[in-house]
Amino acid sequence: MSPPHNSTLVDRHLAQLHERHRSLEEGCVASYYASGRGYYEPGDAGAEREQFAIAFATRSEDVHVVGDCDVPFALQSLAKVFVYGLALEDHGREHVLEHVGVEPSGDAFNSIDFDERQQRPHNPMVNAGALVTADLVRGANIEEKLERVLATLRVYAGNDGLSVDARTFELEMRSADRNRAIAYLMRSQQMLAGDVEAILGLYLRQCSVMVTCRDLAVMAATLANGGVNPLTGMRALRHSHVRDVLSVMHTCGMYDAAGQWAYDIGVPAKSGVSGGILAVIPEKLGIGVFSPGLDDYGNSVRGVRVCRDVSERLGLHIFAAEDEDALLGAGGAAASA
Amino acid sequence: MSPPHNSTLVDRHLAQLHERHRSLEEGCVASYYASGRGYYEPGDAGAEREQFAIAFATRSEDVHVVGDCDVPFALQSLAKVFVYGLALEDHGREHVLEHVGVEPSGDAFNSIDFDERQQRPHNPMVNAGALVTADLVRGANIEEKLERVLATLRVYAGNDGLSVDARTFELEMRSADRNRAIAYLMRSQQMLAGDVEAILGLYLRQCSVMVTCRDLAVMAATLANGGVNPLTGMRALRHSHVRDVLSVMHTCGMYDAAGQWAYDIGVPAKSGVSGGILAVIPEKLGIGVFSPGLDDYGNSVRGVRVCRDVSERLGLHIFAAEDEDALLGAGGAAASA
Amino acid sequence: MSPPHNSTLVDRHLAQLHERHRSLEEGCVASYYASGRGYYEPGDAGAEREQFAIAFATRSEDVHVVGDCDVPFALQSLAKVFVYGLALEDHGREHVLEHVGVEPSGDAFNSIDFDERQQRPHNPMVNAGALVTADLVRGANIEEKLERVLATLRVYAGNDGLSVDARTFELEMRSADRNRAIAYLMRSQQMLAGDVEAILGLYLRQCSVMVTCRDLAVMAATLANGGVNPLTGMRALRHSHVRDVLSVMHTCGMYDAAGQWAYDIGVPAKSGVSGGILAVIPEKLGIGVFSPGLDDYGNSVRGVRVCRDVSERLGLHIFAAEDEDALLGAGGAAASA
Amino acid sequence: MSPPHNSTLVDRHLAQLHERHRSLEEGCVASYYASGRGYYEPGDAGAEREQFAIAFATRSEDVHVVGDCDVPFALQSLAKVFVYGLALEDHGREHVLEHVGVEPSGDAFNSIDFDERQQRPHNPMVNAGALVTADLVRGANIEEKLERVLATLRVYAGNDGLSVDARTFELEMRSADRNRAIAYLMRSQQMLAGDVEAILGLYLRQCSVMVTCRDLAVMAATLANGGVNPLTGMRALRHSHVRDVLSVMHTCGMYDAAGQWAYDIGVPAKSGVSGGILAVIPEKLGIGVFSPGLDDYGNSVRGVRVCRDVSERLGLHIFAAEDEDALLGAGGAAASA
Repeated sequence: MSPPHNSTLVDRHLAQLHERHRSLEEGCVASYYASGRGYYEPGDAGAEREQFAIAFATRSEDVHVVGDCDVPFALQSLAKVFVYGLALEDHGREHVLEHVGVEPSGDAFNSIDFDERQQRPHNPMVNAGALVTADLVRGANIEEKLERVLATLRVYAGNDGLSVDARTFELEMRSADRNRAIAYLMRSQQMLAGDVEAILGLYLRQCSVMVTCRDLAVMAATLANGGVNPLTGMRALRHSHVRDVLSVMHTCGMYDAAGQWAYDIGVPAKSGVSGGILAVIPEKLGIGVFSPGLDDYGNSVRGVRVCRDVSERLGLHIFAAEDEDALLGAGGAAASA
Repeated sequence: MSPPHNSTLVDRHLAQLHERHRSLEEGCVASYYASGRGYYEPGDAGAEREQFAIAFATRSEDVHVVGDCDVPFALQSLAKVFVYGLALEDHGREHVLEHVGVEPSGDAFNSIDFDERQQRPHNPMVNAGALVTADLVRGANIEEKLERVLATLRVYAGNDGLSVDARTFELEMRSADRNRAIAYLMRSQQMLAGDVEAILGLYLRQCSVMVTCRDLAVMAATLANGGVNPLTGMRALRHSHVRDVLSVMHTCGMYDAAGQWAYDIGVPAKSGVSGGILAVIPEKLGIGVFSPGLDDYGNSVRGVRVCRDVSERLGLHIFAAEDEDALLGAGGAAASA
Repeated sequence: MSPPHNSTLVDRHLAQLHERHRSLEEGCVASYYASGRGYYEPGDAGAEREQFAIAFATRSEDVHVVGDCDVPFALQSLAKVFVYGLALEDHGREHVLEHVGVEPSGDAFNSIDFDERQQRPHNPMVNAGALVTADLVRGANIEEKLERVLATLRVYAGNDGLSVDARTFELEMRSADRNRAIAYLMRSQQMLAGDVEAILGLYLRQCSVMVTCRDLAVMAATLANGGVNPLTGMRALRHSHVRDVLSVMHTCGMYDAAGQWAYDIGVPAKSGVSGGILAVIPEKLGIGVFSPGLDDYGNSVRGVRVCRDVSERLGLHIFAAEDEDALLGAGGAAASA
Repeated sequence: MSPPHNSTLVDRHLAQLHERHRSLEEGCVASYYASGRGYYEPGDAGAEREQFAIAFATRSEDVHVVGDCDVPFALQSLAKVFVYGLALEDHGREHVLEHVGVEPSGDAFNSIDFDERQQRPHNPMVNAGALVTADLVRGANIEEKLERVLATLRVYAGNDGLSVDARTFELEMRSADRNRAIAYLMRSQQMLAGDVEAILGLYLRQCSVMVTCRDLAVMAATLANGGVNPLTGMRALRHSHVRDVLSVMHTCGMYDAAGQWAYDIGVPAKSGVSGGILAVIPEKLGIGVFSPGLDDYGNSVRGVRVCRDVSERLGLHIFAAEDEDALLGAGGAAASA
């Protein structure tokens, strides 16, 4: 029920996983890989579709990786998780809830639909909610906010090298009209205040921070480890907020396939359009997968398959049956029935 | 972290809970209590709003109850959980998924919106999905299907007396036009086949099965106990389907406040418009609460409060922090940081 | 500016029109021609696509026809116009407006969207509105209501032979689930009362009344002639209600292409899925066209083309420029400018 | 059937109209009168609610006015009519139709819903369509475009003094976020190109042009007169485009009450949130009404009443019955029936 602890075993397990899911016929890479236009829509299969990495970060050992684990890619929506955590740190649960809900909406990530009853975005994993969340980060100005976001991401990853990729950011800005519209719409309904271009710039910069699959696994492990980076021992998130972040990932993390993921795979996770998925097995494991071929929901095709495979083989689903003998005396009763 | 095992302690805990949440200024009872018309909408505060019961069913002991635990009420939407389980038993996960999704939709329970991409209702906890689910139950005819539903509910509750209340059913039928419309709409889109009136009759009969709060706690405990009734030892649901049922409860069980519930309270649960809530703490506890005063989402006001209180005091949130010392070696590292 | 009055000239004009629009590469016939399933959706091109008739009914002369003018077809949505008129006769403008709006909704004819502000269907040309309108027809029972609808249609057409085609009605009933859902949805919101199956039966029978293109032109001419059948002199509709019927046809008659029609062709008209279009040139002309090949909006492809052609050549657009010389002294002023 | 031609008679008619509709209990003035915030929503009743003017402009005589006919107010949505005409002049019907539809949508004026089938705004009378229309105006830059818009408005009004009110424009800009969002949303879907802020500036400037009720009546009369200003003899719009402009006014001019207006009053008209309504009786009359108290749809309460009154008394409804004797020989036939 728990992941293998022997280092060699883990590596062998990873190598097999990689091998099993290597062949890939489906999926399109986000078009920003190719051209920078309309990158939120899956585009043609490009060379990037071949890239494939898996990383596991456990508590007592080093990080285990297989495949293209040193290829940098943009965090994109993966950043939403960590910035939401930072907003919780800065303001506490109640205040953040007033501004961003936690309800899965069934809408696409770039939806212009809001929680009209409470005049707030549905949740922090859709773009509308992530824009408001970014704006909640404390800081005298956008630069300071960005610095705090970067500092936080670096603690999660234990990697001081994380930074914004200027070219990615520039591409993002060029195709940001829908996000810009979402932001102005929210400002027109008093869900957002301040300088929309600055908030948008902050949001798109957090999306443009480059990580590797190895980084992603460590970031996930930090959440699995109650908010403390298992490699550095540095705290990235207060223990009491970890459950908030994981809860939102669980119900809203995988775009409009979140319910299917919670049903099938059953672990808190988040995906990004660049092809990354991070999954958190609380108190056990952080998983990173990177493979840019996306399915219709915008989730990495291989990423979903790898996580399903791991969840099934290791029994990681949060509602997975524990060893049947351990159940509440049922075995005996059932036998006697 | 686990519920108190000493019987007297549990009873004292329950009495205190009841006392703490007794006063109630808000909430309206579903109008069917008063008049039988349009019962899906909260109506005026009636005498029923005073009723209040809490029950805990653990594995090794008897059921603990406080308050109006012997007042019968209609299962209403609570039945959806168990009938979904029966459909899984009858057809397996894949087949059921083809006909009913598992995605929270953000819509109200009586929504006429469907998963257009896959031509199926969004999930089995909205009425559309529950109608399809009821129709999936095996049986040569509606009577046989109903008998199998009743038999299943009786195993969950360990109560052979559970049966359809004729008057409730009659009231339901009188105000069934929206459900009827949903069913015909689905049939017009090939999501449903067969005799709509018969399917509607089956669905409304399952809604009209009367239970007590005590029954509800035992039914929840059966799910907590891997599908085996802890009192009778009888199996109600295959172990492998328990996670499917709990997953759907977790993401879709509390109407359009499901995300907030998963965030705040963090245990799989389901509510019904008659004022009942059942909550499942896997391998630990089944909770039933009954109090007909409803909030804007159609959830029992006291029920939500009691469950939040219990979840917080006992640390039951599925992503709640375990004892900090137990964490992945982080404590020391953090201290040295 | 006015239609040709010389009989031979009119016949020649019609023959040329028919010839010009004879070739047809596009359009699908409603599937009910072929199979009786889901007839509201255009299906494959069938033999019916070849059928093509045009008829003009003027005041002083006989009816002029060309093509398949004796082929009977079902009125379908064309009936909505006349039944709306009958409801106005029975209850007056104010009462009818309370139950059915007159607002174009931009929705498809089979929409389940209503005017929520006023709890009524948007207009009598969408199915929801036509169901309510049918129910407004006075009569002790459905049989009596149907007799009155038939009697009215016969006066419009000057044809006592108009009657319900049993086979068409039967096909309609087999694929009526969406209309049934619309009706139950309206009943659940108190927009409709009474026996839904009976109202649906009435509505589908009015849809199943068979007419020829010749009949259609006379029915249109009756509206053009202030409500009095120009051939028989019988009054079908009070003069004061003609403008109400024409107004609704003008803004809502051509499904969700009504605005485009009002812009391009600019005369009150209504189409039916069986391929008929009737157009009314007040005080001048009634036009019927029959050709079952439909465009994406459900309007007859040839019907739209013929009407556009006639409107342009004869200057029939309600906002068409009159002879420039007749204008308010502008000519001279402009010249001197 | 035609308006009174004797000057004294017209003045007496106007005075009576003004008197009949003077008392006003309902309606809220657009909040921009008071505060400049969110002016699209009716706000409190302010002093402006008392203002009331009516003007008639016929062909052969001077303009007849009563009430506050010299109070300037912003054109707001009234400008949409004339700028649409200018876009037609600049590009012709086909080209403009590719970019802006002519379909009433049933949506509010500030809707973010588009014609998805054809990737364009529904019509030029909703803000989305008006933004695209403004951008279609030819000009090397925004200044040139604005100059051409102003020049056109001046020809319509025969008033060279028409100009942008800086304070109104400034207020508009302060509460332009929803329009800004609409524009960016359209640009993200390739319905709009170029500099959104510049287009928005152009659009809001055209909204901020000040007119009097007298100007409005002359502008309407120019449309009634085939595009030629009856006072100056200057052509404002090609004759062939007048019908296009009137058609769109007729089906889409009165916000989401356009259908009701076409049914009740039956003349092409347009209203603005500042309280103006212009109505066009082709070849007869231009009507201007100004009264800032608005109904729920955003139309001037008194303006609607005055126009209904005029339409009824003068028989101006486009489908109003002509003199019954003039009908197609029906009188006699009916008499003999």
